[in-house]
Amino acid sequence: MHKYRGQCRLVLKPASTDEVSRILRYCNDEMLAVVPQGGNTGLVGGSVPVFDEIVVNMSRMNKIHSFDDVGGCLVLDAGCILEVADQFVAERGYVFPLDLGAKGSCHVGGNVATNAGGLRFLRYGSLHGSVLGMEVVLPDGTVLDDMCTLRKNNTGYDLKQLFIGAEGTIGIITKLSVLCPQRSPAVNVAFLGLSSYQKAQQAFREAKAHLSEILSAFELMDAKSQQLVRAVRKEKHPLDDEHPFYCLIETSGSNGEHDYAKLEAFLESVMSNDVVSDGIVAQDASQIKSLWTWRESVPECIGHWGGVYKYDVSIPLSDMYTIVDDVKARLTEAGLLGETDEYPVLGAVGYGHMGDSNLHLNVAVRRYDKKVEQALEPFVYEWIEKRKGSISAEHGLGLAKKNFIKYSRNDTTVGLMKQIKHLYDPALGGGLPQNGIMNPYKYI
Amino acid sequence: MHKYRGQCRLVLKPASTDEVSRILRYCNDEMLAVVPQGGNTGLVGGSVPVFDEIVVNMSRMNKIHSFDDVGGCLVLDAGCILEVADQFVAERGYVFPLDLGAKGSCHVGGNVATNAGGLRFLRYGSLHGSVLGMEVVLPDGTVLDDMCTLRKNNTGYDLKQLFIGAEGTIGIITKLSVLCPQRSPAVNVAFLGLSSYQKAQQAFREAKAHLSEILSAFELMDAKSQQLVRAVRKEKHPLDDEHPFYCLIETSGSNGEHDYAKLEAFLESVMSNDVVSDGIVAQDASQIKSLWTWRESVPECIGHWGGVYKYDVSIPLSDMYTIVDDVKARLTEAGLLGETDEYPVLGAVGYGHMGDSNLHLNVAVRRYDKKVEQALEPFVYEWIEKRKGSISAEHGLGLAKKNFIKYSRNDTTVGLMKQIKHLYDPALGGGLPQNGIMNPYKYI
Repeated sequence: MHKYRGQCRLVLKPASTDEVSRILRYCNDEMLAVVPQGGNTGLVGGSVPVFDEIVVNMSRMNKIHSFDDVGGCLVLDAGCILEVADQFVAERGYVFPLDLGAKGSCHVGGNVATNAGGLRFLRYGSLHGSVLGMEVVLPDGTVLDDMCTLRKNNTGYDLKQLFIGAEGTIGIITKLSVLCPQRSPAVNVAFLGLSSYQKAQQAFREAKAHLSEILSAFELMDAKSQQLVRAVRKEKHPLDDEHPFYCLIETSGSNGEHDYAKLEAFLESVMSNDVVSDGIVAQDASQIKSLWTWRESVPECIGHWGGVYKYDVSIPLSDMYTIVDDVKARLTEAGLLGETDEYPVLGAVGYGHMGDSNLHLNVAVRRYDKKVEQALEPFVYEWIEKRKGSISAEHGLGLAKKNFIKYSRNDTTVGLMKQIKHLYDPALGGGLPQNGIMNPYKYI
Repeated sequence: MHKYRGQCRLVLKPASTDEVSRILRYCNDEMLAVVPQGGNTGLVGGSVPVFDEIVVNMSRMNKIHSFDDVGGCLVLDAGCILEVADQFVAERGYVFPLDLGAKGSCHVGGNVATNAGGLRFLRYGSLHGSVLGMEVVLPDGTVLDDMCTLRKNNTGYDLKQLFIGAEGTIGIITKLSVLCPQRSPAVNVAFLGLSSYQKAQQAFREAKAHLSEILSAFELMDAKSQQLVRAVRKEKHPLDDEHPFYCLIETSGSNGEHDYAKLEAFLESVMSNDVVSDGIVAQDASQIKSLWTWRESVPECIGHWGGVYKYDVSIPLSDMYTIVDDVKARLTEAGLLGETDEYPVLGAVGYGHMGDSNLHLNVAVRRYDKKVEQALEPFVYEWIEKRKGSISAEHGLGLAKKNFIKYSRNDTTVGLMKQIKHLYDPALGGGLPQNGIMNPYKYI
């Protein structure tokens, strides 16, 4: 994104938990700041050394230790690449419970540290549920070994949960055990056109009822997002006519015939009830891929004209798309949005993981303009605060959102978070050897 | 169980979060110990006032606040009864992601405080994944309001996770938001006989492959458990011949025909490969109930002859049943187990949630005898420690297991847990007003 430029004179690449522990103990004693770094694919600058922090890169800790092919528990180092882990379990009939665009380079340790969401979230849920065990090194070098490989263990506080989504601010994750579900051999994809956001919500409700246990993705795209993709890619859209909204629905199950029958019943229902205006079902793997392209290439195509202001937000479903209309109205009123080159803003676009109430609000611009930013912020954050949404659904806080947490968390909660940070990595030593060494200038 | 007798002169029944907050602030200032109490159905004495603690009973806080019937998020008070919550969402096509025997009286707040597992765990996973938001009052009266109703919110440490399974030792949960999955209209049950534990593992592996997304229970019962049930209930067993092991398999899905076809394909495969010796599929709802009886009445029937030593443990699947054989051998060698009345032990029985690696090891006795206890403990705990199992899979620590945590957690981990307890509810005031008031004498 050309948004962050790291500054760093020392990168350490430990090969063992003991080395990580010795590094942190030393840095803690010497008051040296540290940035844990996985695949360096985060979107909020969380793994960037801001001033002169020492990078602790985890890429050498990349062993897969064991896999229980009855229970599905995978034990692996934090530095394993997500795609490698997924391929390993795929050969054994399982699936890693997380999938995202950066899978070819992101590390599973980084995924857990940032509580990554991604494409399989609707089906396999949060990492808080699928991470069974963790080994993590605390800022003072203490190794917390909670490498449970069992689904149930009610013996005391579940400390590992604190490190899921802590973005490397209270420790470095070194090892994980992860519960992998059975892989689904059958995948189907449908692409629908709808006349309103209201209808998209109805379609989602119907999809849950008809597809229930096999529904693995429900994605939303608005008309503008598809216009922009078509303008860039110059390909024929899957649906002949234009529609105000589009949904991509994916099913994954153990029996292709059964799944197809369920999908057909769903489509019959939503077409005959006028919930959906038009629809198409992929006939083979290449068509599945091509339909996904119209969803997956949105973020890339949007940047084609100059730049993009990006917001990754959670909003209750009933209100979710309204933010796009409100942002459009605001930019139009301010004289910033228009068809011709004199307007900096080309369009405001909404798309994302509707099944998870997770919207990507993107404002496509012809050129960056301070006035646009001023029109958007804090407007967008205040809008979300009013609806009790989240200003960062899955990307985290990092450097980018550190100053905006108050829009999603009240003062008491932020105070209690700072207490946790202080517990593990105190900023005010007062005779103690720790000095806030872990991933400083970020998060809270 | 006639195991605990509470002592208490004061029961408080707050009707609002504010009242809970004022109670705790007062008790904290006055150094008065407090026991939070939900439905009082726990199995380890966690909700019992040990000496003279003040009971804070949550039964008056029992409102259901809202339900989002598109997203499936239920917002409710901690004192709601589990069955009431489940019925509420059932009428709307959803299911509460937790089910257990005590559902008619247990509170959802208590379920979350004890991280209850239960019958839907295999399908819907841990409460760490399905609890979306929480309001909890800390020992000093501070209200932590993290009532998120969205699936994704990556803005800071996920503090609520600490209170899931904390057994009321660092706060009282007052409100929850819970993600409810789509309810499955179709349920099927099969009951299988198998010649060895090895075969039961194979059957589980095959069930996961064939039934995948619709598998909702995989329960194991050994021969002795079924003999004891038959001896008490004097009914015909579902299978004609006796088998060393039995499995009960349940599927839940959105389409009964599809599910039945999958179950048939699974049965054909395991019968033709000699994985399963005999099997039966329930033909209607009453037969489903009757098959479940042979699993669900085990704990009750086992107590018929006098008493039971009960262990609720997690062990890696490959080794899970071995503990029953080893316990039997040890009791036999010690001259404690035999057919006739001179022996205190009637039998050692293994059954439980095989799909979750969760075994209930029960030792049925004709009379309680100190020698039996000495033969069992710490033998059982040491056995589990060697296999890196858990001494409490789903029941928690409470009063019963407080002294045994070291068999499942190392000293460093227990030390870090005590640090958390001290953070929220310090035992050594040193000028601070807090004095370890929350659910003392228990947990860690």
